[in-house]
Amino acid sequence: MIQPPQSARKASQSEYSAALIVIGNEILSGRTQDQNINWIACKLAEKGIRFSEVRIVPDIAERVVSAVRELSARYDYLFTTGGIGPTHDDITAGCVAQAFETPIVENEEARAMLERHYGGPEHLNPARLKMAQIPRGGTLIPNPVSGAPGFVIENVYVMAGVPKIMQAMLDHVLPGLAGGDVLLSRTVSSRFPESRIALKLADIQESWPDVEIGSYPQFKDGKFGVSVVLRSANEGMLEAVERDVKKLIAELEQG
Amino acid sequence: MIQPPQSARKASQSEYSAALIVIGNEILSGRTQDQNINWIACKLAEKGIRFSEVRIVPDIAERVVSAVRELSARYDYLFTTGGIGPTHDDITAGCVAQAFETPIVENEEARAMLERHYGGPEHLNPARLKMAQIPRGGTLIPNPVSGAPGFVIENVYVMAGVPKIMQAMLDHVLPGLAGGDVLLSRTVSSRFPESRIALKLADIQESWPDVEIGSYPQFKDGKFGVSVVLRSANEGMLEAVERDVKKLIAELEQG
Repeated sequence: MIQPPQSARKASQSEYSAALIVIGNEILSGRTQDQNINWIACKLAEKGIRFSEVRIVPDIAERVVSAVRELSARYDYLFTTGGIGPTHDDITAGCVAQAFETPIVENEEARAMLERHYGGPEHLNPARLKMAQIPRGGTLIPNPVSGAPGFVIENVYVMAGVPKIMQAMLDHVLPGLAGGDVLLSRTVSSRFPESRIALKLADIQESWPDVEIGSYPQFKDGKFGVSVVLRSANEGMLEAVERDVKKLIAELEQG
Repeated sequence: MIQPPQSARKASQSEYSAALIVIGNEILSGRTQDQNINWIACKLAEKGIRFSEVRIVPDIAERVVSAVRELSARYDYLFTTGGIGPTHDDITAGCVAQAFETPIVENEEARAMLERHYGGPEHLNPARLKMAQIPRGGTLIPNPVSGAPGFVIENVYVMAGVPKIMQAMLDHVLPGLAGGDVLLSRTVSSRFPESRIALKLADIQESWPDVEIGSYPQFKDGKFGVSVVLRSANEGMLEAVERDVKKLIAELEQG
């Protein structure tokens, strides 16, 4: 079982934050549509961890290193996706090691995993052995699908980019993470455009600073409507705000 | 016609870079799957602009301001999506103004656009007028669908978050942007896993440093294969590398 990292073990902490670095030339080139961000967002929300930032950066070592340094210092948890395979463009493990000024070494457990996966030590060519190179002190995240394990070092969770593998890795690490209060949400929809409800919605937001009120225009059948999304860990407050928003919309509908 | 910004008018420049800030609580909460990143990536690639970074940040003013400052300084172009509507959580225009230490003022042309859109000045309530508040010196990007215009200031292109509107805004600004050489790409697929071709692929990459070689595992019908994607502005080089990669795979297939 993976332990929550040091930085997340604050006894009195009720809110936990996380960021994600997508290491992805293929996303930036437009070749591939990312499927991991939304998945991770939903899983973190369920766990009561605030997803606070995503960066998509190219496969350039200095860019990955500086993003890892900056975001691992700023948030409780940092996840990365992509770049842990056997090819020359898989640079994530080396970059994470560099970010923490830790040497990258052959991890015995990773080597054993790869031996099992490829059917014996005689099948471990140098490219496959590259996937056993893990920053010293890293804890492995098993890969149930292909060879390359992910790993955890400090508060950084290094995962594969292939969605099926990333999902399995995330399922593996999430139970060991500390989370805070789960944000509950309510959505109130209206056929009125945002500009009709904006001012009164701002008044409601001002009265209830602890409920996050988001207003999202919708474009449907050639007409604009709006979805008002309310978020709070406090169900009572959420209900009160939902009542206020519904009342506002009912008043508009009557006149 | 929108002029290319000062920072992009370098006479001898052959490469142009761009970044994107997605202002998006709704993306970070998992409620919405982003549809803009991939669209923008493809359009920039067609234009010969290197898409170099994406940040998804929450609707928190200081986070938006610091991202705008950092990325507008680092790249030739910065795009933003989201947060230009009439509600309290639409904070983008104010944040961009703050990033450039410019006052935000009522833009006459924007006011006129909104008057036309809403059918006369008598329909401009304060919420709608908020959408005419543009950083001083900003040039408008028309919104053919709903009221709120986007705008350009310095090298920052502020667009709507609703995909249909963002796409129309991007189509409006792209013809005015300077682009460099368009990267051509070739994809060579193989049923072999990455770890079989990794070392020889690294040799090819070393021989052809000006062709970007990406290796992407594919998981299909329970088996791993690989797509090798080659990118270069030089068609001759691209063909040479494609030949080398195809030869490598053919040799593997013959055993």
